[in-house]
Order: sequence, then structure tokens, then C-alpha cells
Amino acid sequence: MSHPFFDRHQALLQQATEAIEQRGYWSAYTEMPSPKVYGETANDDGKAAYEAHLGKPFALAQAATVGQAGKEASPYGFNLGITYPKADLDQLFAAIKTASPAWRKAGPEAWVGVSLEILQRLNQRSFEIAYAVMHTTGQAFMMSFQAGGPHAQDRGLEAVAYAWQEMRKIPKMAYWEKPQGKNEPLKMEKHYSVVPRGVGLVIGCCTFPTWNSYPGLFASLATGNAVVVKPHPGAILPLAITVKIAREVLEEAGFDPNIVTLAAHEQGDNTAVELATRPEIRLIDFTGSSQNGNWLERNAHQAQVFTEKSGVNQIIIDSTDDFKGMVRNIAFSLTLYSGQMCTAPQNIYIPKDGVDTPEGRVGFDQVVAAIGDSIAKLTSDPAKAVEVLGAIQNVGVLDRIDAARAIGEIVVDSKALAHPLFPDARIRTPLLVKVSEVDESKIMQEFFGPISFGIATDSTAHSIALAEKGARDHGALTLSVYSSSAAVIADARSAAEDAGVALSINLTGAVFVNQSAAFSDFHGTGANPAANASLSDAAFVANRFRVVQSRAHV
Amino acid sequence: MSHPFFDRHQALLQQATEAIEQRGYWSAYTEMPSPKVYGETANDDGKAAYEAHLGKPFALAQAATVGQAGKEASPYGFNLGITYPKADLDQLFAAIKTASPAWRKAGPEAWVGVSLEILQRLNQRSFEIAYAVMHTTGQAFMMSFQAGGPHAQDRGLEAVAYAWQEMRKIPKMAYWEKPQGKNEPLKMEKHYSVVPRGVGLVIGCCTFPTWNSYPGLFASLATGNAVVVKPHPGAILPLAITVKIAREVLEEAGFDPNIVTLAAHEQGDNTAVELATRPEIRLIDFTGSSQNGNWLERNAHQAQVFTEKSGVNQIIIDSTDDFKGMVRNIAFSLTLYSGQMCTAPQNIYIPKDGVDTPEGRVGFDQVVAAIGDSIAKLTSDPAKAVEVLGAIQNVGVLDRIDAARAIGEIVVDSKALAHPLFPDARIRTPLLVKVSEVDESKIMQEFFGPISFGIATDSTAHSIALAEKGARDHGALTLSVYSSSAAVIADARSAAEDAGVALSINLTGAVFVNQSAAFSDFHGTGANPAANASLSDAAFVANRFRVVQSRAHV
Repeated sequence: MSHPFFDRHQALLQQATEAIEQRGYWSAYTEMPSPKVYGETANDDGKAAYEAHLGKPFALAQAATVGQAGKEASPYGFNLGITYPKADLDQLFAAIKTASPAWRKAGPEAWVGVSLEILQRLNQRSFEIAYAVMHTTGQAFMMSFQAGGPHAQDRGLEAVAYAWQEMRKIPKMAYWEKPQGKNEPLKMEKHYSVVPRGVGLVIGCCTFPTWNSYPGLFASLATGNAVVVKPHPGAILPLAITVKIAREVLEEAGFDPNIVTLAAHEQGDNTAVELATRPEIRLIDFTGSSQNGNWLERNAHQAQVFTEKSGVNQIIIDSTDDFKGMVRNIAFSLTLYSGQMCTAPQNIYIPKDGVDTPEGRVGFDQVVAAIGDSIAKLTSDPAKAVEVLGAIQNVGVLDRIDAARAIGEIVVDSKALAHPLFPDARIRTPLLVKVSEVDESKIMQEFFGPISFGIATDSTAHSIALAEKGARDHGALTLSVYSSSAAVIADARSAAEDAGVALSINLTGAVFVNQSAAFSDFHGTGANPAANASLSDAAFVANRFRVVQSRAHV
Repeated sequence: MSHPFFDRHQALLQQATEAIEQRGYWSAYTEMPSPKVYGETANDDGKAAYEAHLGKPFALAQAATVGQAGKEASPYGFNLGITYPKADLDQLFAAIKTASPAWRKAGPEAWVGVSLEILQRLNQRSFEIAYAVMHTTGQAFMMSFQAGGPHAQDRGLEAVAYAWQEMRKIPKMAYWEKPQGKNEPLKMEKHYSVVPRGVGLVIGCCTFPTWNSYPGLFASLATGNAVVVKPHPGAILPLAITVKIAREVLEEAGFDPNIVTLAAHEQGDNTAVELATRPEIRLIDFTGSSQNGNWLERNAHQAQVFTEKSGVNQIIIDSTDDFKGMVRNIAFSLTLYSGQMCTAPQNIYIPKDGVDTPEGRVGFDQVVAAIGDSIAKLTSDPAKAVEVLGAIQNVGVLDRIDAARAIGEIVVDSKALAHPLFPDARIRTPLLVKVSEVDESKIMQEFFGPISFGIATDSTAHSIALAEKGARDHGALTLSVYSSSAAVIADARSAAEDAGVALSINLTGAVFVNQSAAFSDFHGTGANPAANASLSDAAFVANRFRVVQSRAHV
């Protein structure tokens, strides 16, 4: 059956469905925080809306509330002072069970229509969400707006488009007529119903609470499942706002809002494990550590588990036509959000004999030094630097910086910077360490944060072999290669295909290996230990619903 | 790149791809063993080819052979005397590793082309395979031919069509141009490669070695994976012939034949567990017991696991417009291949107050008695009966018949019949037991074989509730309802959707609940414990390959 929200967003859905097939540039939601697009007062209104949340219980009237939880602190140096409804899980799932039958029966057009309306409302609230993302993750404002707002919404829309593409392939009915030689044919009418798996659980992370959660949230919701959103205790607010908006739209559409619920909790309790192993949970979308992700894959047997975990992202430098461009590009990739991106590079492989450039051969030491200089330059003016670096999300990152210093010789050290607006902000510049001898036990582990290693290899062939093995054994979301040789690029591509990691080639301009564009770039391949799924593809959605048929003679 | 085999079967692939979308009647391979279609001498030639396998080592020159294994016995009462290459697993996987790179790089058109050519050759060998299926599974000849030959091939083709449909959606490349306001746009070219997961393992069963194996085998092969086929020790021959044909086609197409290998073994060893937990195995397709299937789902963490397991199929009798037709239809479903079908009904729920028919109300006892009479009639002439019953695959079935006798009052007992051609054949007629009081601990378990229960319920509502709970908790592949009431049918449909089981309504003619037609009926929903996947849908294929992209500026 059709649904008003489905009709309202038909054109958008059509465009999104074409975009995932063509995979050229396309975006539904404007990434620039422009007053012309979002309204002259959008920034002020959004900031005020964000500030209105501070220092009080978050206004979310949700079933099964038995208390309050929440101790978020801004990486910019103050406590948010917000608490959230704490749910009794048995009561929560009872409420979800009550809400589910009407939602299940509403069918794909209603599920997709409601999902698209939620995305539309999220887009309108992009400034408020941006400030919420900024003060939970530590991202600078521009990234908070783009990655936390329109880019996350694009990723959500992408998942809805995939879900719709798969569901619309199932015919509502079929007429089946089997010839019987000279006898009357057998004639049947068959009906096919798309049914959801049950309840989806979305486990958010503390660095990209919306970008990494929206694909799973909308993939499950658009296929008729109820969704429980469990934010990381350090980044609840952006997802609390998201859940509240989803509930408002559900209610407007005539559904019980408990189809989307928030399961906020504080660090150190057992909420994630309790939720993940409940029999009602049939889908889990997780972003976080390999340890937790692997646990879910091995223990949440009752659910389909989609994970994005740790990895070691790598750069292979063989040669370049644009040494300065290369160095600048890499330095920016290392500096952006202090390396706290799952796509940020860590290991940079450079032949010990150096690399060919238009200016002649540049030695290993010089290449590493040039990247170090570029980082230093990028971070020399604190006021500008903090707009790239953002703040350090949690103190665990600081511990890793300390540990990484011991891996080799420090080329540029990580240092604290003062934020002009937030005196207590936790700001650190990137650490770059030079490693003259490859020791896989040291470099083949994720140092999440502003940490990278310039590593001397025997040759580019050695670099490629290391990168392939690293991605295959330890996981990777990105691989980058710099070379003027078509043969080297072909080898790198072959290694990337073997190890199942996305490859960026000769990025010297304004595209960075960290960036992954919805509707064009598959984020994660699902083919190495860093992720068991890709954002988004058919496999990400096709198993979130099932088809139940009935047949009768006509 | 295009491939000659792909070009050869283009039209067929096109038809199959349309068929899975429309889901009306369509079949690629003729189900009647007609001399006009298969050739005047096809039966004699096939029988001779089957007989030529008997009493000697099976002619399969395969890497890593270190001995011979195989002790198959025909349920028709004689030993096949065939042995098969026994593989050293380390050597086998080394050979597969050598074979894989060229296969991986060949791409979707080659994978699909080779798969379609294998299916074509399998079709030509349908008679030989039919005799092989008959004398391993115990199926009567007609079922062996149809289900073991063309219907299995149709299910294989269906999986190839789904694989192709998903792979062709991935563009080979995309041009990405992102506007940058007044500046030059960012321009990139992106390439997308479909890469296989690795090696697939197909674990066959002893009752439908080809029908249940071909979907997984062809889904994995058509998405670029190598495939190890591990037949049930009791039904090796049909899959050995299949593997041999696959290897011939691979070799003709210029590939290393070790892309498809046989892992034959004898009962009681650890081959299945060793194979299933090898790191190279990234896909597992399993048909068999819940115990083994659940073990795989919980322990083969390195692989995507697709299972079809045990279940309790059920019939709800509320009322009927055609009592005789209903009774005949049910009796035939219970008799066909001695109930040794994963789709065969077991529990028949009838209100204790009886059911309405055009001839008036018929009491519970009378309904059960009528089904019993119909079974007795169907099996009264041994020569005709054996062509429906086939033979009992293994003695475990006989033990279950004994156990089932104690569940209630015997309406018709199972008895041995003499086969006119095979004096030592293990033939048994169906057992029908009347159960006057519902005891879930007794009836809610699978009694695989010619065993069914006529169960008195309080009402049709009680029957529907039992059926829903049974399917949900214990799994079911089929559910059947008989009712003249639209309201009852709506309730049954709702229960079927809630429990995730396919529903057949008022089957009184020549379609039986056991039958599942490729391209139209989804076999299994993946939504209850009887199976975690469906044959076939997008979810069955979409995660067997991954996409690895590369991007560079233009």
C-alpha cells in the first residue's frame, strides 16, 4: 500500500536508486553549512537548540524508563550534564513487541516513506546535530556538520535506497500456470510478503556517532524492523536527537513510536552484551573495536551481525610526479580530526633507497622529514590548526601516543595546542615516527589517533607485500599508493583486490584517502578483518528482511 | 571481459533473470524423462553409464589424492562398491590456492558462463545422475530423475541468475565529478572489481544430494569462488559425477579444474569439521540435521554459513469444500518418498469437534481414519506403491518409526513391502498415529521419515496457534491449511508471516505441499529455525562476493 511519506519522497528515492547504480557524484543533502540552503538563522537556532539540551535530562518520553543515565564530557573541556532515559530492558522489549505488528504489516512503502521523512527532518536539524557531534566526538565544527549531518544523512539514504531496490524486486503476487500435456494446466496464485527479521540493534561509536550508525539504523528500519539505538556512552546526544526525531515521525505516521528506541547507558556496565544477546535482537550493526566486534560475531548467534572494527590503513610510496602535492595530501590526511578516523592512514611504506620525483631521487629520510615538516606547518597556527585537528575524543588516545613514541625515532612529536575558544580542550598535533627496520609485531596493530609511522622497506615490492599482508591479517579500510609507474599501480591494485581493501591512487589534490563518498565509494569491503560488511551494498540490506509466500489454486 | 560460454548461454540467462523477478511458472530443463527431449537411447545410455561406475574406483583424477574412500549401499538392497579419491586436505587446499588467482581474475561473465555450461552438461547426463540418485537416496526413479536432474538443475540455474543479477549491478567504472563552487570540480575515475570471498564448502545430504547442493555450489561458483563439495557418505555418486563434469568444463574453458573438487569420506570420521573450520573456507552451504547445522552456525566463524536443517511441517485442517480431494492430497504428501522430504508434513491439526465439509460435519476420528484409508489404498499394490514410496534411505528412519508408534494410537501402521525388482530393498509404508491430547514435548520434534500425527486440537484457533509456535520454535519449511473460511485463511496467513513459514492453501489437486518450484517458490524463508537462508534470493548470493574499488584523479 502507498503511504503519504512515500509519495512525498518518491523523486528523491528515484534519484538515490539511480545514484547507487551509477556511482558517480551525487548527494541529497547540502554539505556546506550555508545560510542560503539551511536558512539565515539556522546556525544560531541549531546552536541554541544544542545548548538547550545541556545540563538537564534529555526530553525523551520513552516506554520502560526506570531512571536516568549519561555522563558525557565534551573533548573541548566541559561536562555536558545531560542525562537520558534509562530503560528496563524487559519492559522495553515488551513495548517494542506491542509496537511491532502494525509496523510489520504496514509494508515496504510505509517503512521507506517513514525512513525518508526522518532523514529529511534530520537534515533540517543538521546544525543542532553538528554541535552535538562536535561536543561529543571532538570533531571541529566543519567536520561535525558535514560528516555528522549531510554526509551521515546521505549514508542513511543510501541504505534506504538499497533496501528499496531489494524489496521492490519481490513481486507482490505471481500467477503460476504449469502445463500438464493434454490435461488442464495447474494454476496457482502466489502471494509474497516482505517481513522484517525482528528487532535491530545499532551500537554507535564515540567518533562518528551518526555517520557510522545511520546506515544500519536506516537499513533495518526501511526493511520493517524495530530498532534499538545504543549509543557509545561518550557520544549519546547526537543519537538521542536522532531517535527523538524518528519517534516523532513514526507517531505522525500513525505508528507506535517504540519502533525506534534509545538504550542509553554509562561506561562500564553490561548493557551492550545484554542487548546483543537478547533473542528479540535479530540484526546488529556495530562500529568499534575488533575485540568487541569479534565478540559479537562469535556470540550473538541469534542475529545477523554487521561490524566495522579496527584496522591498519597503509600508504605505499613508490614514486611521484608531484612530490609537494603528495606530501601535503598525506600530512593533511594524518592531521584531519587528529587521525581519529577509521579511514586515516597509519603505516607509510617508503623504500629505504628513496623515491623518484620530478626533482630527482628523494631519500627515505627526506620523504619522512618532508611529511613531518608539512604536519608542522599545518599545525603551526593553533587557531587554524584546531579547525582541522579537532580535539582528542578520549584519554585512551593519549596513552597510545605515548606508546607509539617508543616504536622508532620521533620525526615530529605530538604536542598540546591551546584552543582559542575552549581553554580546557584536549588538542594534540600528530606524532610521526620513523621506523628503519620492519618489525610486524610492532607496526601491524592499530594505533587509533594522531599516530603514523614512516617505515623503510627493501623495495616497493616489499611495501606492496607488507600492505597486502597487513590488510589481509589485521584489516584495513583504506590503502593508498603513490607511483608514476603503471606496473606498480597494477601490482598495488592486484594486492588490494587480493586483500580486499579499497585503493586510492596518487592523491595529491583536494581528495583525501580518509574520505568516503556516499553513493560512489563503498566504505569497507567486508573482505578483510576491518569490517564484515560494506556501507552500503545489496548484502548489507538483503538479509534484513525475509519473504513469506502463500499459494493457492485459482 | 566476455567469455564464449557466457555468450553461448546469454538467452537462457536472460530468461532465468526474468523468471526470478516474475516468479510465474518457468523451467529451463525438461522434467519428463522423455526420449523426444533427451534422445531415444538416453535412458539406456544413462543406466549403462551409472552401471559402469559400480564396483570400481570412480574415475576422478584430482589433486592431493592419497587414498580411496566410499562405502555406499543402495537402499534398494546392494552395495555400490564404488570408491572415490580421498584427499589430503592440506595438499588439496594448496592445489586450490594455485588454481584460484586465474579464476578470480576471470570475472563475472566467465564465472557465470562456466556455471551455465556445467548445468547444460549436467542436464545431458540427467539419466545417469537419476540412477545415481535413486541408488543412493532410495527415491523412486521418477523422483530421482525429476528432483535429482532437471529440478536440481533449475535450482542451480536460479542461483546463477541471482548471482548475475547482483553482480551486474556493480558498474565496472564510474566517473565522479564533484562541484567546488567557483573552483574547478574534483574529478575522479573509479573502478569496481567483483572479487570472490575465497573457497566455498558444500555439505550434501543423503536424501537430495543434487537438489539441495546445486544452489550453494552454483551460487559460490558463479561469484568466482572455488568450491569443495563434501557429499554425505551415503550419497557420494551423484555429486562425484557433478564434480567431474564441472572439472571437465573448467578445463575446457582454460581454467585449473581444482576450482571444483570432491572431498569424499566415510561415515564417522572428522572430515566435515576439519573442512568447515579451515581458514580458506569462507562460505558453507549445509543441508542436514539441526544439530550439525547449528554447530556450523556457531563454530565456523570464518565463513558465511547457509543452512537448511530440521523442522516440523504442519497441516491445519479447519474445513474443506472437497473432503476427498483434501484427504487424497494429504495422503500422497505423506507417502511420497516415504516422507523423507524436508518439506513433507508431519503434524496434522484437526479440531476435536471435527471439520465442516460439503457432506456435513466430519468428526476428528473420521478425518484421521480417512487419511489412513487413503494411505492404505495408495500403498495397497506394492508394484505401484514403490514408485511413490521409493526406499528408506537409512536404518535411522526405521528406528524413528518404532519410536513414533508410542506417541499415540496407530491408525495405519508402517509395514514392509516387497519391491518387484529389488528383493532386498528397504521399503516401508507410512505410519499414521492419532494423538488425542496435545503434548508439545512429544509432537514438536522432527520425525524424519514416513511418520505423521493426526492431532486433536481444541479449535482451529488452537491449531493455528500451535502451528505458529511450532514453526517459530522448532522450524518448518512448509505449512498447509484447509479452510472454506476467508477469515481462517487470513489468520493462517498472518501466523505464517509471523512464524516465517511458507503457506499452501487448500491443496486438493495435483500440487503437493512437499513440492517447491524453482523460479517461483522460495524454498525456506530463513526466518525460522529450519533454515537460515532461502533458495534462492538476493541474500543467498549477495555476500558471496565483495567489491574492491580503486580511485584516481583524471
